[in-house]
Amino acid sequence: MSEELTGNVLVAQSGGPTSVINASLAGVITEALNHECIEEIYGGLNGIEGILREELVDLAAEPQKTIRGLRYTPASALGTCRFKLRREADFQRVLQVFQAHNIRYFFYIGGNDSQDTADQISKFAARAGWEMRVIGIPKTVDNDLVVTDHSPGYGSVIKHIATTVRELSLDALAMGQHDTVHILEVMGRNAGWIAAGATLAKRRDHPNDPPHLIYLPEVPFEPNKFLDDVAGVLKKEPFCFIVVGEGLVDEDGNYIATSSRSNDSFGHSQLGGAGDYLKSLIDQHANGIKTRSARLGHTQRAAATGASETDMNEAFMAGQAAVKAAIGGITDKMITLLRGDTDNYTCETGLADLSEVANGVKQLPRNWINEDGVSLNYQFTKYALPLIQGEVEVPRENGVPAFIRLSKVRVDKALPAHTFD
Amino acid sequence: MSEELTGNVLVAQSGGPTSVINASLAGVITEALNHECIEEIYGGLNGIEGILREELVDLAAEPQKTIRGLRYTPASALGTCRFKLRREADFQRVLQVFQAHNIRYFFYIGGNDSQDTADQISKFAARAGWEMRVIGIPKTVDNDLVVTDHSPGYGSVIKHIATTVRELSLDALAMGQHDTVHILEVMGRNAGWIAAGATLAKRRDHPNDPPHLIYLPEVPFEPNKFLDDVAGVLKKEPFCFIVVGEGLVDEDGNYIATSSRSNDSFGHSQLGGAGDYLKSLIDQHANGIKTRSARLGHTQRAAATGASETDMNEAFMAGQAAVKAAIGGITDKMITLLRGDTDNYTCETGLADLSEVANGVKQLPRNWINEDGVSLNYQFTKYALPLIQGEVEVPRENGVPAFIRLSKVRVDKALPAHTFD
Repeated sequence: MSEELTGNVLVAQSGGPTSVINASLAGVITEALNHECIEEIYGGLNGIEGILREELVDLAAEPQKTIRGLRYTPASALGTCRFKLRREADFQRVLQVFQAHNIRYFFYIGGNDSQDTADQISKFAARAGWEMRVIGIPKTVDNDLVVTDHSPGYGSVIKHIATTVRELSLDALAMGQHDTVHILEVMGRNAGWIAAGATLAKRRDHPNDPPHLIYLPEVPFEPNKFLDDVAGVLKKEPFCFIVVGEGLVDEDGNYIATSSRSNDSFGHSQLGGAGDYLKSLIDQHANGIKTRSARLGHTQRAAATGASETDMNEAFMAGQAAVKAAIGGITDKMITLLRGDTDNYTCETGLADLSEVANGVKQLPRNWINEDGVSLNYQFTKYALPLIQGEVEVPRENGVPAFIRLSKVRVDKALPAHTFD
Repeated sequence: MSEELTGNVLVAQSGGPTSVINASLAGVITEALNHECIEEIYGGLNGIEGILREELVDLAAEPQKTIRGLRYTPASALGTCRFKLRREADFQRVLQVFQAHNIRYFFYIGGNDSQDTADQISKFAARAGWEMRVIGIPKTVDNDLVVTDHSPGYGSVIKHIATTVRELSLDALAMGQHDTVHILEVMGRNAGWIAAGATLAKRRDHPNDPPHLIYLPEVPFEPNKFLDDVAGVLKKEPFCFIVVGEGLVDEDGNYIATSSRSNDSFGHSQLGGAGDYLKSLIDQHANGIKTRSARLGHTQRAAATGASETDMNEAFMAGQAAVKAAIGGITDKMITLLRGDTDNYTCETGLADLSEVANGVKQLPRNWINEDGVSLNYQFTKYALPLIQGEVEVPRENGVPAFIRLSKVRVDKALPAHTFD
């Protein structure tokens, strides 16, 4: 494989945004500028969907301060998509776009589905004899990508949640007898990584600190056990603080709550998420207990102010590493994060086959969850604590964050419009 | 009135906590230490309810670094209550506690109801011939206290919300066509001050920035107009960002949403708050539009990280001013914040009669709301923008905020237990 492949870069973002996904984009752009074999640095708008539309922007035309500002600007600055490439015609179109713009380096920042897309594009281009390098860059608040120790985006979301739990639990404590059960619903449709992160709010050597109960998708939910859990906490503590992942499932593996109105296994009609469901159980089955609930929604993955500096730096490093690997002749791989085996946390990058990442989902290890099913043990804390260290400093304008926006200088289209159906 | 009234201080906190209520407590303690006529500085636990129980702590025994830490520690460090003094026996009990501990200075940090309590205690003590000074210190995220230009706690909550809106709107923008209506429910049961603050997320000279629609309790809610509003925004913008105050009311003045299950005017059963209700209207009456909603709950009033430095400083100043006023012979007043009439924002303290504050509710001026009923004009921005300037720096431990906790050294009880009924 040629070490000196000359041509243009295309980078795009896919899937749900995170606080630090743009730091990876900044890493790609910053590193790409170092290599003479890279001529142009293009961004694809709205992931593969915009690439099909040949909607490319010239990232080298962006002011340097904009690229620096990407590090602390949340959400996908290039726009994102959840489009799945299926038709042969779509793969051909992607290749035509690559060829029309001499794309020799393609970097795709995303989660499982995005890595699958990158893998298929890589293999399609190889079969067609178009020499190029395709590298995936991991991104997901869900932390469910396999092979990599953790994923950029995860550290920031759990730092935000642990901070929120610590703040909110002081509020709960202050209110004394008045509000006795507090419920915080967090993201995590398929794995409990995010909800588990709330345990980092506990002070060292204070296992009874909030959150008292953490409900994870990994542990089938039993309403009667839940009510017993709450009663047990309220016997010992002045209030009960619950964190629940949105993807809670019952013993049959069905979601406990759906976003549309439905009937649950108790025959209760419900609207809203898992937190609302837990609230309704308490309201209906536990007399005299007041409940308060909050649902952070997408605010948690967009919370750039107070994001993890470690996470941001690693996201940037992953973007840089992708370019370095591609320049070095690597293709069809995803950048991974490797944890050093020393006592002091260290992190460097590695590589995994795109196909391996595309087909796996990393579950929260069952032996990191205590037998009670509602708390995490020291192994989780040891794993997660290094990921939330340091705070991203976001510049302000008029008291609110001064995020940047790409000027998005369009690259002239060379192809006719694509038909999607 | 004697200028040199020698005796002890009692300070307590009441009502819903804020991010900066403890800064006022720190102001009281710091200033009280400067005056030789003040012998002991006691805190009452859980507001007037704890005072009835004679639950006092010695605040002068707290380490200095704890007092400094109060400035950035959210929620009422002394605990709070929503207890209303009604019975003659309760007033007598309060006086007995004051007499037993030689309380000559009573500072009560709270909102309308708390100022009412302070007023009644002040008048009861005067009638009983117990010489003392009673000063209220304003506190409320709701910003609905009269006379004062604004209330400590308000600037921080709207700074948090404006920041969240700015972050979340980048997430919404990135998602492109995928999620078209985003709803953020914020606090504000009786006034729209908090929801209005979301408008500070807009960039200067970008009136079409999110939030596109702000629904306030001051403007009776009409479902059909709401659906028209949303459709109108979606014609022009790639997504629609809505902020709604929890206390939204219909044309008859009834709350649109209640925290318990009920039927709305459309005959829909519902669970949850105003945001869920708006979501259900869209889900049921606007085909093909996806909705995402978040409910910040009490997290917004506890968000000390990223709180307004201006707000924190003014909260501290209000606590100091209360002590200075009392030492100077003033009683039965609440500290107010007065805005200078210069172009550059300045703020100093003033005084208002407790009785005047106790009976008033400050509404958001109708002429600060545009005719469309869903946006605020420049007068609101001019008012609110200075209140969110500067950021509170919260020290961290292990990546999460290192808040302080009072050691709460108990003062020996001198009285028999109080019976509450």
